Amino acid sequence: MNDLAPVTATSALAELKALTLDDRIKGLPPGIEPFALGAIAGKGWRVLQGDLPLPLALLKDRVLAHNGDWMRRFLAASGAKLAPHGKTTMSPQLFHRQLADGAWAITLATAQQVAVAHRYGIRRVLMANQLIGRAAIDGILGLLRTDPSFDFYCLADSAANVATLAEAARSAGLGRPLNLLLEGGMAGGRTGVRSTADGLAVARAIKQAEPHLSLVGVEGFEGIIALPDQTETERRVAVFLDSLIELARAALAQDLFASRPLILSAGGSAFYDMVVERFAAAQLPRFDIVTRSGCYLSHDSVQYRGHFQRLLERSGTARGLGEGLKAALEVWVHLQSRPEPTRAIVGLGKRDCSYDAGLPVPLAWHRPGGVLPPQPVVGDHRLVAINDQHAFLDLPADSPLAVGDMVCLGVSHPCLTFDKWQFLPIVDDDYRVIDAVRTFF
Amino acid sequence: MNDLAPVTATSALAELKALTLDDRIKGLPPGIEPFALGAIAGKGWRVLQGDLPLPLALLKDRVLAHNGDWMRRFLAASGAKLAPHGKTTMSPQLFHRQLADGAWAITLATAQQVAVAHRYGIRRVLMANQLIGRAAIDGILGLLRTDPSFDFYCLADSAANVATLAEAARSAGLGRPLNLLLEGGMAGGRTGVRSTADGLAVARAIKQAEPHLSLVGVEGFEGIIALPDQTETERRVAVFLDSLIELARAALAQDLFASRPLILSAGGSAFYDMVVERFAAAQLPRFDIVTRSGCYLSHDSVQYRGHFQRLLERSGTARGLGEGLKAALEVWVHLQSRPEPTRAIVGLGKRDCSYDAGLPVPLAWHRPGGVLPPQPVVGDHRLVAINDQHAFLDLPADSPLAVGDMVCLGVSHPCLTFDKWQFLPIVDDDYRVIDAVRTFF
Repeated sequence: MNDLAPVTATSALAELKALTLDDRIKGLPPGIEPFALGAIAGKGWRVLQGDLPLPLALLKDRVLAHNGDWMRRFLAASGAKLAPHGKTTMSPQLFHRQLADGAWAITLATAQQVAVAHRYGIRRVLMANQLIGRAAIDGILGLLRTDPSFDFYCLADSAANVATLAEAARSAGLGRPLNLLLEGGMAGGRTGVRSTADGLAVARAIKQAEPHLSLVGVEGFEGIIALPDQTETERRVAVFLDSLIELARAALAQDLFASRPLILSAGGSAFYDMVVERFAAAQLPRFDIVTRSGCYLSHDSVQYRGHFQRLLERSGTARGLGEGLKAALEVWVHLQSRPEPTRAIVGLGKRDCSYDAGLPVPLAWHRPGGVLPPQPVVGDHRLVAINDQHAFLDLPADSPLAVGDMVCLGVSHPCLTFDKWQFLPIVDDDYRVIDAVRTFF
Repeated sequence: MNDLAPVTATSALAELKALTLDDRIKGLPPGIEPFALGAIAGKGWRVLQGDLPLPLALLKDRVLAHNGDWMRRFLAASGAKLAPHGKTTMSPQLFHRQLADGAWAITLATAQQVAVAHRYGIRRVLMANQLIGRAAIDGILGLLRTDPSFDFYCLADSAANVATLAEAARSAGLGRPLNLLLEGGMAGGRTGVRSTADGLAVARAIKQAEPHLSLVGVEGFEGIIALPDQTETERRVAVFLDSLIELARAALAQDLFASRPLILSAGGSAFYDMVVERFAAAQLPRFDIVTRSGCYLSHDSVQYRGHFQRLLERSGTARGLGEGLKAALEVWVHLQSRPEPTRAIVGLGKRDCSYDAGLPVPLAWHRPGGVLPPQPVVGDHRLVAINDQHAFLDLPADSPLAVGDMVCLGVSHPCLTFDKWQFLPIVDDDYRVIDAVRTFF
């Protein structure tokens, strides 16, 4: 499915493995000599022996492979394409892993993210956002002008933005159109036109700007719909997805699309089953369905764990695939103080993990030099607050946890944990470091 | 006051100015050729002309200078020393600026932060945290062993940690003690001993570990005290500060300190006036007072603005210094969509700014190519929600703001804005880029 030239991927991955790591980067031992990322397995580091400083966010190799394989099989069963949202990890190494698993493109949110992805060999990008501002527009058009293999899509939801892009594309002399997806939104929501009529007006503006611009599809993001009641949330997601189908049908009827394969895209990491089913059922001619889950690869232990449980309840296709997604991302911390019998402090802060969708949850613990594997946390251990560099762990008075012990935390919302780390080791089942990724936030 | 060898600072700053910037780093234009940080002024970039992509966090040169001068004069008037908390900015260039303004040391929170500071020429560090875990301990002791000029202090609040540090220091053969400050805490609070009796037990453990360890002072952090009622908050801050004085007196009485100048330290960015007044009034023999405000240099537009107003109300010394601290840190964003008359979306996300102590506030706006200087935002423009990469700006139906306009935002809580940026330009009054800093989070 992925038509990125193999030589490009190979050379990008080689460049990434040649990147220097040193102790200015959080997660690497103070005092080490600089070394190439690709040499990390040779260090023989074991997280459970304390070879790396904590806090440390890490990825479990076997779980990454499992999750990638699960999504590959889900897509094969559903017939949709995947452009996983790269903003989650901003790790080109993981982007290439996703392409190797069958992803069609990488989704991104900003021009800087696109520049990083292109620099490291990603040749098809869906920027699920408006392209705004002279520096960002010039930068993207520069990539399109100088790299004929670069296949790029972004969103439009206003005639004002279309006019700016049309003029910029005309001046840039691309020799090909800038591809736009019409973004549909919802009243009270984020970006995106609020009605089919408004959408057709934007679509007509794009049509009139041919050959500099080209309307190649319709896009929306249902993930901002989050009501207390799950059934009502799903009902409104369905209504929103139908509005995107309606927008596509209306623009088709008015012949506003370019003469090429078209894209109908929605889907964060919570409702992609509904997206692929509903869009497929609409049987729109000429449209490929593209979903964009960013979180399936790392998954998490709270928020997306919950979303996935509900997805399994909805989707027979997903249930038929055997064991589901598991959390590949963990954050390990030291217990640094236990100043009261039921209060401990761990070395983890808002700088180190997400905290906007629930605090991390203790999963296991380990005493350096003690028994292996790590022991499950028994009893009510709970993070109750977090500061910039500390977190408050309330625990039973008879908890065995002591100063110096290591605690494994599962996170809620991977996107805002990845962006706290420029480096994440990849570990085997025994927490030996066998590889690593760099991120570029 | 700062006894860092000038040659070390000069060579560290030269190394920082030689660091390469390129378009993998957020805030720099996609497509630019890599260049040395020190050459940035020569680019002739003007933020208001759209030369840099948004969102963009920037620092105002004149305000940095003003705030640095204000704190220098406050310290001169109060007689206290300053070890500004470097975790706020994690920018060694700003650390050197603070030392040049008279700071005595840099405070830091983790071993990785210490490694960064030491790498870039900082030779006196107060790590206001426990030193925990083999990799972190080995790294710090390695710096102490190999660099005789490195003057380092960290905290202790448990006999267990003291035992670990004593054994590590003994094995490392430092030839000098590891300097520890006894941390006092409060019931229900963060780290720190909960009573004078517990504190004396830890102090005795340190004393018994001489010459490997050395007890050189007492420390606490009053900044976690935040009640709805400001008067009650201040009363409890005073009680807590008194408990630290009591801890110091008790350990003095039992002769548990080393025979050298001692340190009594407290003070985040909200109550440092109370710290210096209360500690000075205690007239403890042999103790230098060290405060640790991390936020005075950049200041902010919401949270620390409020703290500073209250500080001025409390402190005649501060009121006597003329114009107070101002916000040097701003985040500029593009308005990317205005899909409803009273709803706009700006290109700013949780990846780009703090949001834990209130969302950023619109201060001014500018239309590229339009009148200068930027215009104040008139009427009720308010960020009401923020996602990973977008923020929701509610505004009056008659607001002039349109797609493509630039909006200047003031932030609440600088620490969690700096850590979203590896690069921040420094601008003059006309938003021309005249310098830049790198951060290392």
